[in-house]
Amino acid sequence: MSEYTEHDKNGVSVGLVEKKTFTFAHPPDRMELESGASLGPVTIAYETYGTLNADKSNVVLVAHALTGDSHAAGYYREDDPKPGWWDIMIGPGKGIDTNRYFVICSNVIGGCMGSTGPCSINPATGRPYGISFPVITIGDMVKAQKALMDHLGIERLLSVVGGSMGGMQVLEWSVRYPDMVASAIPLATTTRHSALAIAFNEVARQAIMSDPNWNKGDYYGGKTPDLGLAVARMIGHITYLSDEAMKQKFGRRLQDKSSFSYDFGVDFQVESYLRHQGASFVERFDANSFLYITKAADYFDLEEQHGGGSAVGAFSKASARFLVVSFTSDWLYPTYQSKAMVTAMKKNGLAVSFCEIDADFGHDAFLVPNRRLTELIRGFLKSVSAKL
Amino acid sequence: MSEYTEHDKNGVSVGLVEKKTFTFAHPPDRMELESGASLGPVTIAYETYGTLNADKSNVVLVAHALTGDSHAAGYYREDDPKPGWWDIMIGPGKGIDTNRYFVICSNVIGGCMGSTGPCSINPATGRPYGISFPVITIGDMVKAQKALMDHLGIERLLSVVGGSMGGMQVLEWSVRYPDMVASAIPLATTTRHSALAIAFNEVARQAIMSDPNWNKGDYYGGKTPDLGLAVARMIGHITYLSDEAMKQKFGRRLQDKSSFSYDFGVDFQVESYLRHQGASFVERFDANSFLYITKAADYFDLEEQHGGGSAVGAFSKASARFLVVSFTSDWLYPTYQSKAMVTAMKKNGLAVSFCEIDADFGHDAFLVPNRRLTELIRGFLKSVSAKL
Repeated sequence: MSEYTEHDKNGVSVGLVEKKTFTFAHPPDRMELESGASLGPVTIAYETYGTLNADKSNVVLVAHALTGDSHAAGYYREDDPKPGWWDIMIGPGKGIDTNRYFVICSNVIGGCMGSTGPCSINPATGRPYGISFPVITIGDMVKAQKALMDHLGIERLLSVVGGSMGGMQVLEWSVRYPDMVASAIPLATTTRHSALAIAFNEVARQAIMSDPNWNKGDYYGGKTPDLGLAVARMIGHITYLSDEAMKQKFGRRLQDKSSFSYDFGVDFQVESYLRHQGASFVERFDANSFLYITKAADYFDLEEQHGGGSAVGAFSKASARFLVVSFTSDWLYPTYQSKAMVTAMKKNGLAVSFCEIDADFGHDAFLVPNRRLTELIRGFLKSVSAKL
Repeated sequence: MSEYTEHDKNGVSVGLVEKKTFTFAHPPDRMELESGASLGPVTIAYETYGTLNADKSNVVLVAHALTGDSHAAGYYREDDPKPGWWDIMIGPGKGIDTNRYFVICSNVIGGCMGSTGPCSINPATGRPYGISFPVITIGDMVKAQKALMDHLGIERLLSVVGGSMGGMQVLEWSVRYPDMVASAIPLATTTRHSALAIAFNEVARQAIMSDPNWNKGDYYGGKTPDLGLAVARMIGHITYLSDEAMKQKFGRRLQDKSSFSYDFGVDFQVESYLRHQGASFVERFDANSFLYITKAADYFDLEEQHGGGSAVGAFSKASARFLVVSFTSDWLYPTYQSKAMVTAMKKNGLAVSFCEIDADFGHDAFLVPNRRLTELIRGFLKSVSAKL
């Protein structure tokens, strides 16, 4: 997920919001993980926007992407320079209209933004888990979200929405808890990573683990693997954009100079941009979380894990109405992958709307203001509400 | 350039070959570089295959890609397990038929395979240059190749052939020394790097420079920045393949196991492949050379440097016949970039053959056995010979 998120000046923000936490699975009760390991206690950081209606029928669960968090909309302080990561979509009158819906967004487990992850204190040792934290899966993330829903007394979701790895969670929800999910909106996502997507994540992980400061994951309180994490972030960033987007945004323009420097400093604007993205990312993100979350995304295989290798088999468990959206310039999860899931959904007789949006922005297009996407989501949610 | 090169079992090798060197620009005579700096002495490592004919009209100059070398064909020893990097194309009866043509391939300056580069000894200090080596350009590489041609008494090239960064050298030859170049075969290349291509190179350079062992380029005789260079190589490797090629070659197959390891070791075959590529690359390549050569490729801008910003202007200097080849799945230098150069050539009334070859292999397709490519090059060279 990139930093492209811009506040939609025409929209109205949900205003000031607050991060809350919920802790479940206190010892000795631990959460059982897909790997066979267990984890506890588990804390989930979450935020809500809008108002839960009396019959609790207006809940929209938003799932974030790789490096996102629970802060999907609004501001933490009056002078907060930036709103939540999907403020363009979530708010009064926006695509996910907080005048109508009660929106929940939680940080995934394995993350570093308030939910239990590798930088959390392991109660057994009194020290951060580091890589003694168990490897988690998209299924585990969703299971933890389900515990949060139970805690909030929510038995049914009007919709689950998310892009990229958020979309994987959406798909997982739809087959893991079909009775709870009235509708699902997977955006710019896939039922399983291609070799290409795994390859990029693996190189990013190698960049982190090659940094001596990584120290086998045991760096809390000492020097952090900033250089490795920055390289990992830069790799990710390239995959979120497209050839055309980069051409429009940077081309071959030089950074603050009229001729080449003939050294290894910054020459091109795109170099400056990437270095900045790398440097700012390390201030907000934990390197171990990056390892765990990319691994979870690589492991995700809806077909294998829910359909015995068949997408049709996997979606036979689902009953939600689906809105599937892909973007023309997304080469990380290209449209053919969305079309494959749509085909499998249709073979199960599920109600599916599919749209490939023509956008130059690459994978990150779902985070960029796009009237078409906003209207699609708005219309779909209205239609689903009407049929409840 | 990947390791995909396979010996064409059906072809006949040129047999045993020998690397030669030629040193020019002895002090006080130094080679003037495009940056304004100068370099000397300059040594060029090169190999030749086939026999120079009496009127020296059968010379084919082959230019190598990023991490290639002068060893384009044949074997160094009887028990050599691998032939030169383009042995599938160069040899008796092959696409570049050594029964007909005298083939020359030299290592670029800035390289680490025998030509002067950052790992060479700086005569002024008696120590390796490191990053005191001047930044070189594709133009400088070609200028050095021209000095080698002068040394060999060759005044005219039947053809200059190369893929990827080799193709950049081909284009540079065609406009820098038009009177010497009867024909030119740029494969899978571009007149200038897109922002996307620069971005990948920049991240690869950052991976190297982030390795503490890089030590600002001063690591010769000490610990070398293997981890950073391996990550750089892995990044490059991904860009040389395609989504489809990786799907066919690896898919989501696991490496020597039937279920996930739930740790950060190797799970998927594609991870194992990348780690292997990274590890084996560091044994044969110098990290500083990687920095210099990628920078030269990023700086290359035929339009800016020879045409005042115009491709038509740049090719107005050329007089060669061209065979331009792109590959459908090459997303590093996509076909649209080849088409743009073809258009500019045609606007200058140049004789151009263009072919987009349908291949799944991605950018590296030019290094993989491909009957279509072999026949195109064979036919084009015959046709050019006939018209000389």
